[in-house]
Amino acid sequence: MTINEKITLDTITQTVINHGDHGKSHPRLYEIYTSLVQHLHDFVREVNLTESELQQGRNFLNQVSHHTQEIPTGEIHLLTDLLGISELVELLDDAHGGTESNLEGPLFLANAPERQMGERLGIDPEGDTLFLSGRVLNLNGQPIANAVIDVWQPNSKGLYDIQDPSVPQGNFRGRLKTSASGKYTFETVVPLGYSVPVSGPSGELLRLLGRHSWRAAHIHFKVTAPEYTSLTTQIFIAGDPHLDSDTTFAVRSAIVKLQKHESPEELKARNQSKPFYTTEFDFVLKPVTLCSGES
Amino acid sequence: MTINEKITLDTITQTVINHGDHGKSHPRLYEIYTSLVQHLHDFVREVNLTESELQQGRNFLNQVSHHTQEIPTGEIHLLTDLLGISELVELLDDAHGGTESNLEGPLFLANAPERQMGERLGIDPEGDTLFLSGRVLNLNGQPIANAVIDVWQPNSKGLYDIQDPSVPQGNFRGRLKTSASGKYTFETVVPLGYSVPVSGPSGELLRLLGRHSWRAAHIHFKVTAPEYTSLTTQIFIAGDPHLDSDTTFAVRSAIVKLQKHESPEELKARNQSKPFYTTEFDFVLKPVTLCSGES
Repeated sequence: MTINEKITLDTITQTVINHGDHGKSHPRLYEIYTSLVQHLHDFVREVNLTESELQQGRNFLNQVSHHTQEIPTGEIHLLTDLLGISELVELLDDAHGGTESNLEGPLFLANAPERQMGERLGIDPEGDTLFLSGRVLNLNGQPIANAVIDVWQPNSKGLYDIQDPSVPQGNFRGRLKTSASGKYTFETVVPLGYSVPVSGPSGELLRLLGRHSWRAAHIHFKVTAPEYTSLTTQIFIAGDPHLDSDTTFAVRSAIVKLQKHESPEELKARNQSKPFYTTEFDFVLKPVTLCSGES
Repeated sequence: MTINEKITLDTITQTVINHGDHGKSHPRLYEIYTSLVQHLHDFVREVNLTESELQQGRNFLNQVSHHTQEIPTGEIHLLTDLLGISELVELLDDAHGGTESNLEGPLFLANAPERQMGERLGIDPEGDTLFLSGRVLNLNGQPIANAVIDVWQPNSKGLYDIQDPSVPQGNFRGRLKTSASGKYTFETVVPLGYSVPVSGPSGELLRLLGRHSWRAAHIHFKVTAPEYTSLTTQIFIAGDPHLDSDTTFAVRSAIVKLQKHESPEELKARNQSKPFYTTEFDFVLKPVTLCSGES
């Protein structure tokens, strides 16, 4: 039985795609595989890739996979973020309304500390205090009670807890529930933007491309409620210098303005000794039935 | 300075490509990067890749990189072969005449044993002996003296030396030089085709795609001579059941027919106690000046 045609520049791509059972056993895998093979071959032809460049590519992928320093989930995750692939997948998934979803990033940790309504999330004496509040709503604007909000963010120096040995684990992480009227509120610090880790091969790639490695300041959220599609997103801080050039291409519409409070009356009312900030953000969840099977 | 446009499905790909110095410092890298980003994004759009599928893809790449069992150079090399990418690069590089180049594969070892003209390459009492000879020529058909021929191959069970602890290192590997008239000859064994290693994630991918994992029987060569482009290639054995469906898509025109010798006179002349085979293959090298800088 002839499976491969005569292998030439004109036949090889289709020959690869024809090798196998044509997706009889795993149709979705075959659909993905077929498209990926076609596009990777088109890429190789388009740039006339040489053997030594292919070998550099193999070495690069090996180095990326083996560089786990700084990123517990591995640097492949970071690379997909830097190539805009992760955000593109978010955009494709986002056509059904509700708050825009966004990159989870590699720094989410399950089992964050449980926080009470209004509780402060972490220690950062030098940072500017921020009171963040809002509601979790459905597409009709009705509140969702007992929605679970996971929040994680860097501190005022741009560091997450796991990147800063001087702070306790769980610093500026938390899990809290909305009230009967769908409200949440917590006290935190104004986050600082930061550079993604650049000690590995992805950082080297950025340098060779003349790309900067900065993320705009943001706070991560994962919001879940029964019968609603889980929402993972980030909100960004207006005025950040990298809003227009975030290196993961994640800045879209979820940008909040911080309101500064510095009058003696305001400081006294919130029991603060220095100026602080407030802002609000509402999360809108889609019902599970509106999306395509993902939850 | 605005670098990123507003990030939407329509703008994200160009925004990624625009982030950086547009190849000012490394133009060829930027050319490759731009094409790869464009094609990977096109792939993601075409299949409407979901977040969980992207995560499966990241996990797959991590697993491939970390699975080094059976393949000293790592399984990413194998994966590029199985996707036809390695052979496509060979085809693109092959437009300048001379013997077709082909995959080096992951099992080449430098510093193979030096062999004398006519010497046997290894031990395999159960295999069928093969006398292989031929010449190394230039594009005008003139012999190239003192060309260095590296040869490596599996034995009659489809195993390379490094896969078979019962044989000495260097079994069925060798390095020999052509004579003043460009001739070479050595004694070896008729190789058997074999399955590529399937214990890792690439093998699992083949199973899910209903693809077989067999390579047609072949012998690897690397031929070098001063002022000529180094040639890496494989020759295949006519009659092999996987000539038409080699899982690395490497079978093209370099197929040799084996001639069987079993008469008492022939056996006596070659000092053989059982039937043996002969075949010939000439290698044609391109001068360095004809190619695009690769050597």
